[in-house]
Amino acid sequence: MDKKKWFVLLTLVLLGVAFLSPGAFAQEDVDAAKVFKVYPIGKIVKKDGRTFVVIDKKFEPGLLGMDKLPSVNVIYWFDRNDTPDKRSILQVHPRGDMNNPLTGVFATHSPVRPNLIAISRCKIISVQGNIIEIDDIDAFDGSPVIDLKS
Amino acid sequence: MDKKKWFVLLTLVLLGVAFLSPGAFAQEDVDAAKVFKVYPIGKIVKKDGRTFVVIDKKFEPGLLGMDKLPSVNVIYWFDRNDTPDKRSILQVHPRGDMNNPLTGVFATHSPVRPNLIAISRCKIISVQGNIIEIDDIDAFDGSPVIDLKS
Repeated sequence: MDKKKWFVLLTLVLLGVAFLSPGAFAQEDVDAAKVFKVYPIGKIVKKDGRTFVVIDKKFEPGLLGMDKLPSVNVIYWFDRNDTPDKRSILQVHPRGDMNNPLTGVFATHSPVRPNLIAISRCKIISVQGNIIEIDDIDAFDGSPVIDLKS
Repeated sequence: MDKKKWFVLLTLVLLGVAFLSPGAFAQEDVDAAKVFKVYPIGKIVKKDGRTFVVIDKKFEPGLLGMDKLPSVNVIYWFDRNDTPDKRSILQVHPRGDMNNPLTGVFATHSPVRPNLIAISRCKIISVQGNIIEIDDIDAFDGSPVIDLKS
């Protein structure tokens, strides 16, 4: 009977751990107010010399009226630089040119910065369903798009 | 003995759940590649009719050269709308005016959108240490700033 009680106790403790652990261990929850979560809404697609913003089907309703705009701010994520090292860089020689004086990343468009947000104003060529054709963008094929703004 | 075996089995199952659950239940880990983490670099401070971008001391080196710029793009987070409900809104009547036709959030500047990124071009009045005085911004006092760009 005593052993049985221990098993019951152990079971209850483990149940507690199981239910509490996502909150206890997930880094996001340590200080939730200090981390904002950004989800891709689509991606850049470059094909045959043309450039497209392909929005996930579930976000397509968010494009209503986009076809009336001449241009759009495409906000994307510099995902190739998403490492703690690159996100800790605070000063750069703009455009990687050592002749340019060392400058704070916040006074530049550098693709290394604490939060890897990129903004590019793009001309809209057409909008068809979930696909926007734009004139061009200085982003890699496949770059995750995180927002669009008029 | 049979009951004991059941307790042992239950214990083992719960141990498994306890160790796996942070990965199994924390949304961040379901598809880590699909969530980008954004950390505040400072905040908006409004005081005595003046407006400041106060950057955390540890990011101050990122402001080198900012004093030479006439204006800066202030990127901040609509933190008051950071709820799953508000982040799932895809269409709005711009400026909350029902006379404005329903429009996709990506074709507007609406403060409700999947990723709560706000962008505002602001005139720079002065830069002193980690504090930038700007002319004005359509943000609440205390709004978290997540990036600055030339």
